[in-house]
This record gives sequence, C-alpha cells and structure tokens, in this order.
Amino acid sequence: MSNGHIFVGEVIGTAILILFGAGVCAAVTLRHSKARAAGWVVIAFGWGFGVLAGAYTAAPLSGGQLNPAVTLGIAVDSGKWGKVWVYLLGQIVGAMLGAVLAYLVYLAQFQANVRAEGSTEDTADGTAEGTVEEPVATLGIFSTIPEIRNPVANLITEIIATMALVLPVLAFGLTKGLGQSGTTVLIVSLLVVGIGLSLGGPTGYAINPARDLGPRIVHTFLPIPNKGTSDWGYAWIPVVGPLIGGALAGLVYHAAF
Amino acid sequence: MSNGHIFVGEVIGTAILILFGAGVCAAVTLRHSKARAAGWVVIAFGWGFGVLAGAYTAAPLSGGQLNPAVTLGIAVDSGKWGKVWVYLLGQIVGAMLGAVLAYLVYLAQFQANVRAEGSTEDTADGTAEGTVEEPVATLGIFSTIPEIRNPVANLITEIIATMALVLPVLAFGLTKGLGQSGTTVLIVSLLVVGIGLSLGGPTGYAINPARDLGPRIVHTFLPIPNKGTSDWGYAWIPVVGPLIGGALAGLVYHAAF
Amino acid sequence: MSNGHIFVGEVIGTAILILFGAGVCAAVTLRHSKARAAGWVVIAFGWGFGVLAGAYTAAPLSGGQLNPAVTLGIAVDSGKWGKVWVYLLGQIVGAMLGAVLAYLVYLAQFQANVRAEGSTEDTADGTAEGTVEEPVATLGIFSTIPEIRNPVANLITEIIATMALVLPVLAFGLTKGLGQSGTTVLIVSLLVVGIGLSLGGPTGYAINPARDLGPRIVHTFLPIPNKGTSDWGYAWIPVVGPLIGGALAGLVYHAAF
Amino acid sequence: MSNGHIFVGEVIGTAILILFGAGVCAAVTLRHSKARAAGWVVIAFGWGFGVLAGAYTAAPLSGGQLNPAVTLGIAVDSGKWGKVWVYLLGQIVGAMLGAVLAYLVYLAQFQANVRAEGSTEDTADGTAEGTVEEPVATLGIFSTIPEIRNPVANLITEIIATMALVLPVLAFGLTKGLGQSGTTVLIVSLLVVGIGLSLGGPTGYAINPARDLGPRIVHTFLPIPNKGTSDWGYAWIPVVGPLIGGALAGLVYHAAF
Repeated sequence: MSNGHIFVGEVIGTAILILFGAGVCAAVTLRHSKARAAGWVVIAFGWGFGVLAGAYTAAPLSGGQLNPAVTLGIAVDSGKWGKVWVYLLGQIVGAMLGAVLAYLVYLAQFQANVRAEGSTEDTADGTAEGTVEEPVATLGIFSTIPEIRNPVANLITEIIATMALVLPVLAFGLTKGLGQSGTTVLIVSLLVVGIGLSLGGPTGYAINPARDLGPRIVHTFLPIPNKGTSDWGYAWIPVVGPLIGGALAGLVYHAAF
Repeated sequence: MSNGHIFVGEVIGTAILILFGAGVCAAVTLRHSKARAAGWVVIAFGWGFGVLAGAYTAAPLSGGQLNPAVTLGIAVDSGKWGKVWVYLLGQIVGAMLGAVLAYLVYLAQFQANVRAEGSTEDTADGTAEGTVEEPVATLGIFSTIPEIRNPVANLITEIIATMALVLPVLAFGLTKGLGQSGTTVLIVSLLVVGIGLSLGGPTGYAINPARDLGPRIVHTFLPIPNKGTSDWGYAWIPVVGPLIGGALAGLVYHAAF
Repeated sequence: MSNGHIFVGEVIGTAILILFGAGVCAAVTLRHSKARAAGWVVIAFGWGFGVLAGAYTAAPLSGGQLNPAVTLGIAVDSGKWGKVWVYLLGQIVGAMLGAVLAYLVYLAQFQANVRAEGSTEDTADGTAEGTVEEPVATLGIFSTIPEIRNPVANLITEIIATMALVLPVLAFGLTKGLGQSGTTVLIVSLLVVGIGLSLGGPTGYAINPARDLGPRIVHTFLPIPNKGTSDWGYAWIPVVGPLIGGALAGLVYHAAF
Repeated sequence: MSNGHIFVGEVIGTAILILFGAGVCAAVTLRHSKARAAGWVVIAFGWGFGVLAGAYTAAPLSGGQLNPAVTLGIAVDSGKWGKVWVYLLGQIVGAMLGAVLAYLVYLAQFQANVRAEGSTEDTADGTAEGTVEEPVATLGIFSTIPEIRNPVANLITEIIATMALVLPVLAFGLTKGLGQSGTTVLIVSLLVVGIGLSLGGPTGYAINPARDLGPRIVHTFLPIPNKGTSDWGYAWIPVVGPLIGGALAGLVYHAAF
C-alpha cells in the first residue's frame, strides 16, 4: 500500500468513525433530537457500527486501523515502524473531519440549544436523563469527560480498556489469516460495542487518541454557540492511556502468541 | 439480469424494507401496540433488519439496491445508466406496496387510534414518550418529519447521512469482490442501524427517496382515520438530499478508490 | 435425512426455540426476575436468538425448520410433501417440551407470583410497565394475546408477518445455495428479531403455529398457580394465519424466483 | 496444542470474558458510571461480547473454551479427559485475573461508592432501578445472586440454562466442521446474549463455574470498601449446576447426533 492510499484510507475511515461516534453522542444528548435520552446502549452500538462503517470502507486502501493505539500495537508486535507516521497523520486529520461533519449533521440542533436557553422548556426537559446540561454536555459530544476526575484511576481505565481492544484485534488477524474480511470487521465492531457497554462507565472509553484529540481541536475552534471549555487539562489522559495500552497489548501478544 | 427480474426484485425487496420500516414506526408510535414507546434503539434496529430482509431476498433477482440514492451512486461510479429507470420504478412501486402492507398489519391499531380520541385514556397515555400526538404521529409512521424545520440544515443532514450509507456500500462491494454475499448484506444492514442511531436525530434519516416518497403518496390516498396533512411542503428534501448525497458518494468513491 | 433424524432434530430445535422464547417472556413479565420490565427490545432479541440456537443446533439432523409455516412454504414451493408430517410432529412435541423447560427455569418465580398476591408489594410494583397483571400475563408467557381482539385484523397481521418470514427464508436458501451455513442461520435469526420489532405490535407475532399451540396446551395442563384461562377461543388465529402466510409465501416465491 | 498454549490461552480468554462481564455489571450498578441503570439488555450484550472477545482471542492457543461446563461437555462427548485439568486451571486463574482487572477499571467508582454513603445523594439516586444498594450490589458485580433463594429451583435453572449453552456449542462445531471460525464464535456469543435475555432472570445465569467462583474468591480477598459478605453459602450452586448441565448436554449430544 502506497503512502497516498494509506493516508486517504485512514482519513476517510476515521472521518466515518467519528461522524458516527460524535453523531450518536449528539443524537442522545441534544434537546431537539429524535434519539434524545435514548441511553447507553445506543451510544455503544453507535460507536461500534461507526467502526464497522469506517474500517470496512478503509480496508482496501489502508487496512482500516483508524486508531493510533492499534497502529502502535501492530508496530510493537511486527517491528515495522516505517509507515506509522502516515497512519497517525491520516487518523488525526480524519478525526477532525469527522467531528466537523457530525457538527454539520446536527447544525440546527446546536443552534437551537442556545436559543432555547433560559426558556421555560429547560425545566420540563431537565427531568429526563441525558438532557443537555450546557455547556459540559456540548464538549461530551466531541471528547471524553470522566465521571470522576482522578488522573491515576482514569489512566488505568484507559490502559486496560485499550488493551481489551488491541489484544483481540491482533489475535483476530492471526485466527483468520486475513485481517480485513467482512466477518473480522464485524467482530471487531461488536468488540467495540462490548468495550463501550462494559468498560466505558468511568471515562467514556476514548481507547483511541485520535478519537479524543481530533474532535477536541475541532471543539476549540468551531463557532458552536455556548460551547464552554474544551477541558485541555484532561486531554493528555485519553492520548497517553490508549498509547500505553496499545503498546502493552503489542508486547503481550508478541510474547504469548 | 433482465428488466423483468430487476423490476420484480426491487418491488419485492423495497416492499419488505418499507413493511419493516413503517411497521416499526407504527409499533413504537401507536397506542395499542405491544412495542409502544419502546424507544429509538427499536426504530433503528427495525429499519436495519428491514434492509437485511429486503436486500437479501431481492439479491438473486436484482442485487437488492432498494434505494434510488444507492442506484445513483453506482451509476455515477460505473458510468452505466441503462437500467437505472427500471430500478427506480421498482423501488417506488415497492415502497408504496410496503406502506400499504404495514398499514394492513396495524389496521386495528389505526382504527382504534381514532376511536380512543377524546377518551380519558389520552391523558394517562400522554405522559409516556413516543405516545401518539395525533395527527402528526400518523404521518411519522409513513414519512420523515424534521425535529427542527430548517431546509438548509435538513438538506445538509440528509446529504451527509446518505453519503455515510452509499460510500461504504460502494466500498464494501470492492472489499468483498462479491456484492451480495450474506455477510455483506448483514454488514450493510448494521450500517443502516448505525446511521439511524447516530445520524437520524435531526430529520429521521430518509437517506432513500423511495422510502420517503412512496409511503407519503400512500398516506395521501389511504383512508386512515384522522390522518392529518401529508406535509408535501417538506417532501422535496428527503428526495433531493439523498440524491445529492448518493451522487457525491459515487464521485468520492470513483476518485479515491 | 431419515424420519428419526428429522423428528429428533425438530424436537430438540423447537424445544430450544420455545425455551428461549417463553423464557424471555417470563424474564420480562414475572415480578422476581432480574429482567423484569426490560422492554420490547429484549423480547424481540430473545426470540431471535432462540431461533439462532434452535435452528443451528437442529441443522445437521433436520435442517432446523422448527415452524409448520416454514415447512408448508417449502412443501408448496418444492412440491415434496412426504416428510411434512414428521416435521410437524417434531415441531409440536418440541414446542411443548420447550414450554415445560421454560416453566422449570422460572419455577420459583411462578410460585412467588401467587404467594405475593395481595401483599403490599403489588402496588409498589404495579407502576412499572411490564409488571404482571395476573392472570392474563401468565398466559402471555406461553402463547400470544392480541392487543385488540379483532379476528379479521389479527388474521391479516399474522398472514403478512408470516409471509415476511417465509419468503425471505426461501430466498436466502437460493442466494447461498446452502441453506444451513452459520451466516444464513444468523441472518434468519436477525430477520426474526426484525419481525418482532416491526410487526409484533398488534398480536405478539406467533408466525409459527407450533410456537403458539404447543405452549398453550402446556399452559392448559401445567399446575401453574393462579394461571387463569388458556384462551382457546383465540387459539385458531395463530395457527391458521401463519399456515396461510406460509403457503402464500411458497406460491409467491415459486412464481417470482 | 501443548499444555502451555492451552493454559495461556484459557487464562487470557477467560480474563477477557470476566473483564467484560464483571465490567458491565459494574457499569450498570455503580453510581458514578455513565451506563448506570442502563438495564438488562446492556448486561446481556456485555457478557455476550465478552465471550466474543475472549473466545476469539484464545482460539488459536486453546480453542477458547473458557468454561468448565463446556470443557466437561466436550470431554463427556469425546471421551478425552487428559487435558481437562489444564483447561480448568487456566479458566479459574483467568477468571480471577479478569475480576481484578474489572475492579481496576472501576477503581474510582468503587472508592466513591463508600465515600458517598450517608450523603444526601443517596435518596436522590435511590429511586432509579439498578442503583447501588450497598453492599449486596457490590457482590453482584462479581458473582451471581438469585432473585429468590431456593436451592432446588436455582439448581434447576442453572442446569437447564447451561444445557442451552453447551448442547448448541457442541452442535455448532459439527455443523461447521470447524470449531473456531469467526462466524461460529460470533454465533456462540449471540447465543450467550440470548441465554442472558431469556434464562438469566432467576439466578443471573452463571452457566460457568469459573465465571462465578473466580470473581467470588477475588471479592473475598480484595480490599473493596464496604463490600459486605461474599455469600459463600450460595457458591456451590453456580458450580454444581453448570457442571451437571454441561455433562447432561454432552450425554444428550452423544446420543442424539
């Protein structure tokens, strides 16, 4: 695969992933959405099927890694580092593009959120779980926010959850002998659903540095009404944690399999 | 594939798709349904498994496109336009047939809706989300209604959401080298579930001109009690938006892959 | 396949199907169940994965039809009627066995239902949807009960819903050229989930005469405390409707494909 | 497969299974989790996708049995008992490791649970279903607790539910002729989802002695704040019941197929 194919594949694939992922967070969070307050099961399946869509689309161009932690785990296991920078560049550009697309899909909703502020609707809607509590919820559409802010615990959560992604992904390739068949992509996407359901409770499961960093950059620069802080103080955890987890998974896989 | 096979396949496949899709909207919306108020996750999976049933049934006859936006995307990419009219004709006829079938499945429910009007049950049921607010909800069983009526924003939503359908569908064919295996159809159906979960919040995700137009025609002519307006003022958006999205996806795919 | 293999396969497969199906209805309905009031999505997936478990287990012995409407549709299409009686016998025996097994799994729950009656818990639990309203809910664990009792409408619902099962099942066999691969069974099971989500609202989707009749016989004879009527006046609809639907699907398939 | 490969495979696979399974129970139970009170459907899919992740990862090393009841059923059917002890040892070690990992993922949540006790939050949160009722709910994250404590009924539930797992697992291998393809693992994981939805209501479906015993040992020794009893009086049922069910399934399979 040429650098150009890899870059285009990772941009398109990661953009689709984040379009679905930020999209489902918007769908459940924003006040004027048909899926508002639809619950955690919707979040987890939305992200998982974003992996399905993005990875399978990107597969013929780049293999569809879409995640620096996966790329790092593969490099640690295989010892091949030459193309890593192309993957990372494509992933971060794609994640930013996807966040912009999700913003455009929910454009009227983001505008209405601010217009409705201070109206009597606020009280009526405020009773349902998942309702917007501006402005924190706006950031939550783009990037992860921990339930309990505790750097050590948050880092441990991200490390273990990312290992639970990357170790199976490495093993699935071995089992199939063919990394990007439809069945394998489907299984990986359901694995991501499972990580969301099971391990997403404490930090919202970044498990992918590009997934968190790209949309956070977009949140910083996009003119979203009433958007609040981009919380850059937390931003290093969903980058460092998944990278440690991905590297550890590569080491464990290399040793055990 | 002969024109006759294509037409019959698209009629049967699209009818099944709309039977499931309009059916699940009826199931969640209508007052005397066991699935009333069952939530957005049920809507999204119901439509997705309608794609599974319709596309896989139609596959041996027509390939199971079932969607003018998909047909347009394939034509833009391949440059083959000769059979497009047969597909479109089958899709719109099938969508109308499917809407009639869904109406028949929920016949007693549609009748009871009007009989119960003004009864004391209205207040008791009115507290649950998803309960019928006649007559708008009746149209919502057949066609899409935006949460916020904003032609530019609604059009953008439909364009991006349709690209998120058609670009992966084109790429999945390439990956597999075989467009209609069971695994591919399954993945496409889960892709549609994902689009519903993630991108359906603002407009109810038509992403298919036949899916919106066919049932809207049926809504106009069927003698449904207390059915209200068919909202033809909005009808152009779920036709034009998906067609633009499908064509753009064809262009992007042709350039990038 | 010998008559003995067919009979044993259909008994085991249908027993597993009904164990899961009656089981999930018990899980959502009974007061002392961890899944009580878990909603329609749980019902639909429980039945669908019951098809997955039962059909795939029975596949090497009998092909895993598990449903007289499917057996009838295949016979109408193929013209081969010699083994039909073996399938039907196995299916009805298996359905009865499965209902007894589901009763045994929820034995303590069925007993507690009656012991708790009249206690102060009744009021507290009564506010949640899906809570037992004895004795009607007890029959609903075994057999289908329409939301609106209207023989013509109920029959139409069962006919169309069964066609939406049997026509795709016949077509899936053609597409794959191999009726019982894992992928095909998986797709059929998700098709059944979809029928539940989309078409189950009015009558609870029998779409299988054995599924309704077998457990109803068991309900009549089992010593379930406070079980109420077995509602034999309705019992012909979930038998006749699916048989008509299956035969019609066989005719349509034979003509169109 | 060497004893070393089997042991490592079963440790890694069972650890992943329990990480997801105990994780999803923590996600739904603990107060400061994004998935709190997300319902039974989340529990069932979380455990099922834990099977997907664990079994497919372990497949190239050990075949991914991850469950003494499955190992016993295979031994009863095949008559090969030589490696059974390696499987069992790996499974119990893996289950303990997985429980520790799940505890680490939710470390801050477990700490906060105790700090929040006695605060005014207790009343506000106490109204939602699935909220922690300390300390019983803490044990429920690790091991199963019956809804109604009745040894005979609980044992019957676990025996039948385990047969509904092991008999299909044995048959799926026959159907495919290849026990660990991606499609087979996917079907087994959805089978486990189905068992959870349908048969998990009375006892929380251990259906795996290692799944219950390993985390219970960890619960006994881990310094979890305010953890309460480990309920060793019940511990024999989720060990003995699944072992009986697995053996019976092996006998039925051997006789019928």
